[in-house]
Amino acid sequence: MLLALLLVAAAVPPDVARHLVGGALSDGVAYARLRDLTDTIGPRLSGSPGAEAAVQWALKKFQQDGLSVRLEPVKVPHWVRGEESGEILPAPGIVGHRLALTALGNSVGGTASAEVVEARSLAELSALGPAARGKIVFFNHTMSKPDDYGRFVEMRSHGPSAAARVGAVAVLLRSLATASLRTPHTGMTSYDADAGQVPAAAVSTEDADLIDRLLQRGPVRVSLSLGCRMLPDADSANVVADVRGRERPDEVVLLGAHLDSWDLGTGANDDGAGVVMVMEAGRLIGSLRQRPRRTVRVVLFMNEENGLAGGKAYAAAHRAELGKHVAGLEADSGAGRPLAIRLRAGDGAGALLAPWIAPLESLGIQLEAGDAGGADLGPMDPASVPLVRVHTDGTHYFDIHHSAADTFDKIDPAELAKNAAATAMVAYALAEMPDVLPRAAPRPPRDNQAAPRPAAH
Amino acid sequence: MLLALLLVAAAVPPDVARHLVGGALSDGVAYARLRDLTDTIGPRLSGSPGAEAAVQWALKKFQQDGLSVRLEPVKVPHWVRGEESGEILPAPGIVGHRLALTALGNSVGGTASAEVVEARSLAELSALGPAARGKIVFFNHTMSKPDDYGRFVEMRSHGPSAAARVGAVAVLLRSLATASLRTPHTGMTSYDADAGQVPAAAVSTEDADLIDRLLQRGPVRVSLSLGCRMLPDADSANVVADVRGRERPDEVVLLGAHLDSWDLGTGANDDGAGVVMVMEAGRLIGSLRQRPRRTVRVVLFMNEENGLAGGKAYAAAHRAELGKHVAGLEADSGAGRPLAIRLRAGDGAGALLAPWIAPLESLGIQLEAGDAGGADLGPMDPASVPLVRVHTDGTHYFDIHHSAADTFDKIDPAELAKNAAATAMVAYALAEMPDVLPRAAPRPPRDNQAAPRPAAH
Repeated sequence: MLLALLLVAAAVPPDVARHLVGGALSDGVAYARLRDLTDTIGPRLSGSPGAEAAVQWALKKFQQDGLSVRLEPVKVPHWVRGEESGEILPAPGIVGHRLALTALGNSVGGTASAEVVEARSLAELSALGPAARGKIVFFNHTMSKPDDYGRFVEMRSHGPSAAARVGAVAVLLRSLATASLRTPHTGMTSYDADAGQVPAAAVSTEDADLIDRLLQRGPVRVSLSLGCRMLPDADSANVVADVRGRERPDEVVLLGAHLDSWDLGTGANDDGAGVVMVMEAGRLIGSLRQRPRRTVRVVLFMNEENGLAGGKAYAAAHRAELGKHVAGLEADSGAGRPLAIRLRAGDGAGALLAPWIAPLESLGIQLEAGDAGGADLGPMDPASVPLVRVHTDGTHYFDIHHSAADTFDKIDPAELAKNAAATAMVAYALAEMPDVLPRAAPRPPRDNQAAPRPAAH
Repeated sequence: MLLALLLVAAAVPPDVARHLVGGALSDGVAYARLRDLTDTIGPRLSGSPGAEAAVQWALKKFQQDGLSVRLEPVKVPHWVRGEESGEILPAPGIVGHRLALTALGNSVGGTASAEVVEARSLAELSALGPAARGKIVFFNHTMSKPDDYGRFVEMRSHGPSAAARVGAVAVLLRSLATASLRTPHTGMTSYDADAGQVPAAAVSTEDADLIDRLLQRGPVRVSLSLGCRMLPDADSANVVADVRGRERPDEVVLLGAHLDSWDLGTGANDDGAGVVMVMEAGRLIGSLRQRPRRTVRVVLFMNEENGLAGGKAYAAAHRAELGKHVAGLEADSGAGRPLAIRLRAGDGAGALLAPWIAPLESLGIQLEAGDAGGADLGPMDPASVPLVRVHTDGTHYFDIHHSAADTFDKIDPAELAKNAAATAMVAYALAEMPDVLPRAAPRPPRDNQAAPRPAAH
């Protein structure tokens, strides 16, 4: 214990820890900003007025905080939802039901009216083959806890193309959700270039249960109408703000979150919370008496939700400097209670970092084994930038994820503040410690939509 | 204990208790019927195809059960919802928000676009007076637990008329709800004959919080469009089914529930659960080797939700026989865990009934002090019929009440079965015990919408 205290003393000056942790926990800035972002701007889907307002909002806040801020251009998909509806059609013995549904992001619009066929995986759909021709494929599953997301999300991302390949006319997906009050959850789908494009929507878990039960009685016919469409790509931007390092300004600790959100809620948890956490880390570090050794860069990515254009654009524009990106942290796990710090880096990284984050012990936050990453940092994978993550309690993350219920009232100000404190402390550590973290072996290429993303959990 | 056992033995023959309790707990009929009602028919708002299908459905089930069943005609209001939408309008510094709203039942349709003024009670609105002229009145409140319903429901039932009186153009009500995933809750409003009629809708609690926060920043303008309208009264019916008493068939134990539901969900908890509980009591009692002394009458009332036409029609049609109605039980409290039996009757009623319901002790259900009643039994108040109630755990009742989330998946089959067992046992007791319960003093006249209704809680 004495040794630990000495190590703390040796690592982070007490006034720095007090400024960062105390500032995050008592200034109330992150929470106030999240309220401001979600109340005055609200939904921020790429290409929407909300997304553009958010870019200007963030630019102004970074300027107020005294960071060196710029907009880096990004071309983004511009998908709009329009009106949408669906129903289980009346049939002998069935009066009919209006469905609670919402189009999957990037879905083509259109109408369909056909019999429903149920599949519980892409493999099950393939096995159905010709039996799905002319039908509406209903992807059902048994998601009941956050960890199930990674197993089932392939039905959302790749299901519509798979359905088109077997001649189906539309897709209904059971929402990927851990709670429901008849609330459908959207999320991105991707059409393969070599497959047809059929309209795809999520139904609430209640409606999925209903369709499943009715299918046990006999044929079920559904009619749906999706008014969504893809407009030409829009001009948007990543917002990039630096606290320039005092000794090695070319070495960068990147703190990322995504400024865009789905259109149904106000993106308070996904990812407004992450946005204000990393902004708060930037604000607090930027207001230290002495800036850290290296540059702390806050990047608010655009278009994480339905294209990842911002993450790709950043990696492309900064390719030459990625070797000097000494660490990356992506905050896109909501504002649940911060439980630990996790790393993806080379051997010995933990031992280097641990003493520098000792001031977080009083918040119950310590380094632990695990992984780190994030969708927006994915395009930087080839550079093997060491990744750090504030691991949060995700128990209720998928209760509201990608649904209309992702709103400000769901955010606990105390947990948000603790997350901001942890982010600030970790960022400071990475920017100040004498040695940088060793790089891990490159990550094998992955499918961001199909695989569980540690930071989007 | 020995005495208690002897009393049980003296009161209810063991084979009868086994048949009723065992049948309710192991046959699975109530749950299967609720699934059938909600899946194949679904919403059952008065005047809708679903309501009429439900009448025919119930008629057929009672016939299958061998009860003596008839339809008693009721003229019901025929209100239809239509399309509905609303938004917080863009303003300087505010991008705008789409609102999650739904018209209050019986509301007039129409559009409004005006500044919002907040009131937290009818009294607060009166105090605002001219300040509300030309505005949309936003009724906000702090409902957080079931017991709060009775305090705040006056804003739903009488708010629109109160708003019209001060010259307001529309009403938005914070949903009367104890949980929300952006789910608005409807419910009946009543226009006073001497006031104007303005469109009225409920917003989700999240939207209410948002409006409240935005009002703290400055003026908020809302636009809303409600497509609802009242059509001419429709012909419908109460479904009345008797298990005729073997000795005193003119003495009636009435078991009531309401067959209609709101249009947003499938009315599984409100009041499909009550419907199948009282049907199950009728089925089980009707299939006893020996019918009880008195008549057990199951009444499925029409139009409890938006008019109470069924309850009024029954009381009117049977006025001459109400003196022979020896007890009434209304099941309209959802399918939460049954906790106790409560009474509203004259002195000594509890002592008479207690030994007859001893077989429910193993289910944790005993007689306790409290009240009983129900909206559909209200019109019978002048006859002072002794009232009995299966008191259930209402903790989550208002999580889904009157919302799209009132669906079959919310029902716990084990608790539903226990409720059916309790209902059957109590009904048998009331129909078989040698003496009838003494009548209580008449209840003072009350406003069913404004006052907490013990059985609708």
